[in-house]
Amino acid sequence: MIYKVAYLGIPGSYTFTAAKKFFGEKMELISSTSLTELFGKVKREICSFGVIPLENSTTGSIVQTYDCLISSKLSIVGEVILKIHHNFLVNPSTSLRGDKAEKSLKLIKLCYSHPEAISQCKSFLSKYPWIKPVFTSDTASAAKLIAERGKRKEAAIAGKDTAKIYGLLLVAANIEKNKSNFTRFAIIARSTNKVGNKISLIFSVKHTPGSLFTALSPYAEYGFNLTKIESRPVFGRPWEYIFFLDFEVEGREGEIKKVIAKMRKVAQFVTLLGRYKKGEIYET
Amino acid sequence: MIYKVAYLGIPGSYTFTAAKKFFGEKMELISSTSLTELFGKVKREICSFGVIPLENSTTGSIVQTYDCLISSKLSIVGEVILKIHHNFLVNPSTSLRGDKAEKSLKLIKLCYSHPEAISQCKSFLSKYPWIKPVFTSDTASAAKLIAERGKRKEAAIAGKDTAKIYGLLLVAANIEKNKSNFTRFAIIARSTNKVGNKISLIFSVKHTPGSLFTALSPYAEYGFNLTKIESRPVFGRPWEYIFFLDFEVEGREGEIKKVIAKMRKVAQFVTLLGRYKKGEIYET
Repeated sequence: MIYKVAYLGIPGSYTFTAAKKFFGEKMELISSTSLTELFGKVKREICSFGVIPLENSTTGSIVQTYDCLISSKLSIVGEVILKIHHNFLVNPSTSLRGDKAEKSLKLIKLCYSHPEAISQCKSFLSKYPWIKPVFTSDTASAAKLIAERGKRKEAAIAGKDTAKIYGLLLVAANIEKNKSNFTRFAIIARSTNKVGNKISLIFSVKHTPGSLFTALSPYAEYGFNLTKIESRPVFGRPWEYIFFLDFEVEGREGEIKKVIAKMRKVAQFVTLLGRYKKGEIYET
Repeated sequence: MIYKVAYLGIPGSYTFTAAKKFFGEKMELISSTSLTELFGKVKREICSFGVIPLENSTTGSIVQTYDCLISSKLSIVGEVILKIHHNFLVNPSTSLRGDKAEKSLKLIKLCYSHPEAISQCKSFLSKYPWIKPVFTSDTASAAKLIAERGKRKEAAIAGKDTAKIYGLLLVAANIEKNKSNFTRFAIIARSTNKVGNKISLIFSVKHTPGSLFTALSPYAEYGFNLTKIESRPVFGRPWEYIFFLDFEVEGREGEIKKVIAKMRKVAQFVTLLGRYKKGEIYET
């Protein structure tokens, strides 16, 4: 059976790549232009699954995604982690004359990519000062743009899978400065998973000393390992406090209900986001 | 005495605006092109202070900044929060003929800004489908660019203070969809503050059940209010765990040393980032 999976942006985007890694080649991937549209597609049963970015190792949690998760009532049913690499890509015509890949850099006048990707590749680009950066809304759009225009003088910075999609050649791989850039994605669906070694939830406590400590005490008591905790900054409303929590459930099946029930007694609210198998890490 | 303050980017950038709000007009602001350069300027005594982004209400903590804080050994000595607004700005020439501000939108062909700002103003821009977005590295650069070119057909999306700096006119204010977008900035310096009602620190615990709970127990015991806790995702190295913690110290002067000493006994390490006065919120 072929399922439809909603992703953000265009083919070759990070959520597109994450969807391919998680589901393989057999799914039909459906583009969305915003998180709201993506959640809507899953909620209205146009798609069975959606792939959303949860957090990045350099920029932190994507709070917007959590907001959509809370309001949509969809569940996290899977996780996938991408190790983000940036690559210097050109059109096949750029190296047509048998140049060595490196030499084709001398032809390039413009390099398209997202400002963050350009910034992460600043030291690479500084070696070729004649190349002028041009900003795009995302890395996949940069690859698509230069492929469509087909000009020899134009390059893009994007992922290796994206290069394949748009028929671009890889001139230099992994040109990013930060070699430890990971993004964590969640697979969302309408129904919840009953199995999996990891649980994500959101909870809130009163803004009083010791309240967070009390809410976490059941996890220590039952021996659950917390893998993520994060308070959400609600600036200007210091009395509103929301926490994101992930914990591992391996080997403690019997205690899951108990720990959540105990937490509910002390927290203002507890909302389960889903249960799923801890995600694999894939290189891009 | 005039102090030098390092900020990121060009005049009108968010850290520039945050510096102006915190220090007033009397400081000399010195531009840096990267966080590393900014930290270097403060460390090598070229600047007395630096202004850095710490976290954003929609995208979360800026982990890169925390990395620089740890490695630089500089201290947080102040805090300032900006409520981020996006505004549609044009050159004075655009409305020269006595047009009403709204009418000048009909003249505009291109609108420059950072992809994130363009995305947040999508519903505003959708009302003027003839305006094509053009991406820049940041919002201040967009304002500077259209001001320098001085074309009637070009607009930029940026802050109100940025508009003043580059002599641009405000055609439409607060055009962002998300009306609750805050960014928190830290003021950094070489020496530490001895006073202030807030303390920030980083700590690490062993990746075992209950370890975080034990590390937080002194705060509950002494009645300190936690205002932020965040685990840092170190993907691929699940045994490495770092937490960012902020807490309020008002009225508990005598217990500060005790709570930190107790935490040190159970944590793998505790690094104080600084003590400072809770920041004010300013509109941009």
